[in-house]
Amino acid sequence: MINKLISKIRKTNAPIVVGLDPMMKYVPGHITKAAFGEYGETLEGAAEAIWQYNKGIVDAIYDLVPAVKPQIAMYEQFGLPGLEAFRKTVNYCREKDLVVIGDVKRGDIGSTSEAYAVAHLGKVQVGSKFHYAFDEDFATVNPYLGSDGVKPFLKVCREEKKGIFLLVKTSNPSSGELQDLAVSAGERQETIYETVGRYVAEWGAECMPEEGDYSYVGAVVGATYPEQGRILRKMMPRTFILVPGYGAQGGKGADLVHFFNEDGLGAIINSSRGIIAAYQQEKYARFGEAGYADAARAAVVDMREDIASALETVRK
Amino acid sequence: MINKLISKIRKTNAPIVVGLDPMMKYVPGHITKAAFGEYGETLEGAAEAIWQYNKGIVDAIYDLVPAVKPQIAMYEQFGLPGLEAFRKTVNYCREKDLVVIGDVKRGDIGSTSEAYAVAHLGKVQVGSKFHYAFDEDFATVNPYLGSDGVKPFLKVCREEKKGIFLLVKTSNPSSGELQDLAVSAGERQETIYETVGRYVAEWGAECMPEEGDYSYVGAVVGATYPEQGRILRKMMPRTFILVPGYGAQGGKGADLVHFFNEDGLGAIINSSRGIIAAYQQEKYARFGEAGYADAARAAVVDMREDIASALETVRK
Repeated sequence: MINKLISKIRKTNAPIVVGLDPMMKYVPGHITKAAFGEYGETLEGAAEAIWQYNKGIVDAIYDLVPAVKPQIAMYEQFGLPGLEAFRKTVNYCREKDLVVIGDVKRGDIGSTSEAYAVAHLGKVQVGSKFHYAFDEDFATVNPYLGSDGVKPFLKVCREEKKGIFLLVKTSNPSSGELQDLAVSAGERQETIYETVGRYVAEWGAECMPEEGDYSYVGAVVGATYPEQGRILRKMMPRTFILVPGYGAQGGKGADLVHFFNEDGLGAIINSSRGIIAAYQQEKYARFGEAGYADAARAAVVDMREDIASALETVRK
Repeated sequence: MINKLISKIRKTNAPIVVGLDPMMKYVPGHITKAAFGEYGETLEGAAEAIWQYNKGIVDAIYDLVPAVKPQIAMYEQFGLPGLEAFRKTVNYCREKDLVVIGDVKRGDIGSTSEAYAVAHLGKVQVGSKFHYAFDEDFATVNPYLGSDGVKPFLKVCREEKKGIFLLVKTSNPSSGELQDLAVSAGERQETIYETVGRYVAEWGAECMPEEGDYSYVGAVVGATYPEQGRILRKMMPRTFILVPGYGAQGGKGADLVHFFNEDGLGAIINSSRGIIAAYQQEKYARFGEAGYADAARAAVVDMREDIASALETVRK
């Protein structure tokens, strides 16, 4: 799946993943009205609204980008109907041949992590049959529990030819409270995020596809921390980095160059709000609420330009 | 909710939480057969089997223990039907007046953590209405993202009078890979789990119920690490500790005493497999598969004795 992601990045010339993180305040009035008209102001109504909203965006952008990243929390808050909308969104994106990164940030111990891995990337056994539960292509994973929590995911990835992105240095303001702490590991002095980065590189070495330069154990490193991105890029040369925090969270095109390798690959930049709610920005206000999907498409085109020109400047 | 938990611990004289972590291999044949007979070997069939299995256990133990802890991964692997079984289990346990600790180990940044908090502890707004999605009483939370990831949970806890248990030192063998690392914070030398413990104590100080000695910000510390339990107990005197790892994972009654305060409170011990699959142990084999619920009840009674006598010995 990492090779499919890379080949799609090459084809679209867009190392971009669109975060499908719907909030009710982004959904245009006509969609909400229709959904509430059919299901009332219920969980089902909300789920229908975000599903229709997502579908409009996916239809508008699927030929421009290699991947989408639905954030499951935004669906989970609407209970079972919300999670059904998540499942439908995942399926629909896969039908459109998009790579789907489930932003689930799961992680637990042993058999429990295995259950999460099965839920999101693998298939579960029921009697003599096997079924896929959510069936994303990649999942994000939290490293706090150590290798016990990660290895069950690697096992499922190996079987299913899928992948994970492990949280290394997250994009939020307080990410340093734990991740930036300096630890002494023998004679080495390093930060927690570097320790996790070393693990990612180590696990990744055992998780290389049959052909290709990048392992299917990726890392999450926030665009808001370009300096740390530079350090981690060097520590993990064969790791694909998923970079959230571009746009709405403050990361800029110029900050992104450190996340890429010399081959122009090695990173994929996420934007959520900046694309899916582009129509709410002054820059794209001309599209209006009804044109929210076209606004999203225009925002993707602009983002592609921004990244390409930033990478261009560096190479000169 | 922390006060309800404490008053129920006092009433039952059992600082015990039963982990409702169903695996298909625990479910007695007659239950599986009936469920597959009705729904086939489908996700629905598996979900029906674990729901009926849970119901039998809850009916057999609800008067003996204050709380249950369903592990959501075990349901999530069966997709939407599995999560419906989770929801039904949570509801049923609450009807039986059990305190429900959702073992969800969620955690993300800002608005995303807020969505998780709403999903599991709060209510979500849909138009002019509010709905509960999963509605547990407590949730477990992962600290890797720092305070941005935790504070949205505290906000919802305050509004709903609920609580969380933050992962501090987990029970699994590899938990030390990150959690035991020594960090230098100014002049202080401490481990990561101590750093997280300090945060728990700090956040807890701002999250005290109107009356009572314990905050509604609890901590998860594994029974398999009694020495670390002793250290954390002292660092966080007003923190309730949720202690997994008793029984099947290797923790013993005698190891548990360090997790309690002088008042005999401050900890609640989890057992999952050791109770819900007791009938598969030689010790409870006399109950047979059909008597799995009675076996669970007998295992709870034995566990209550084990803990009581361990605490007794110390006080002498």
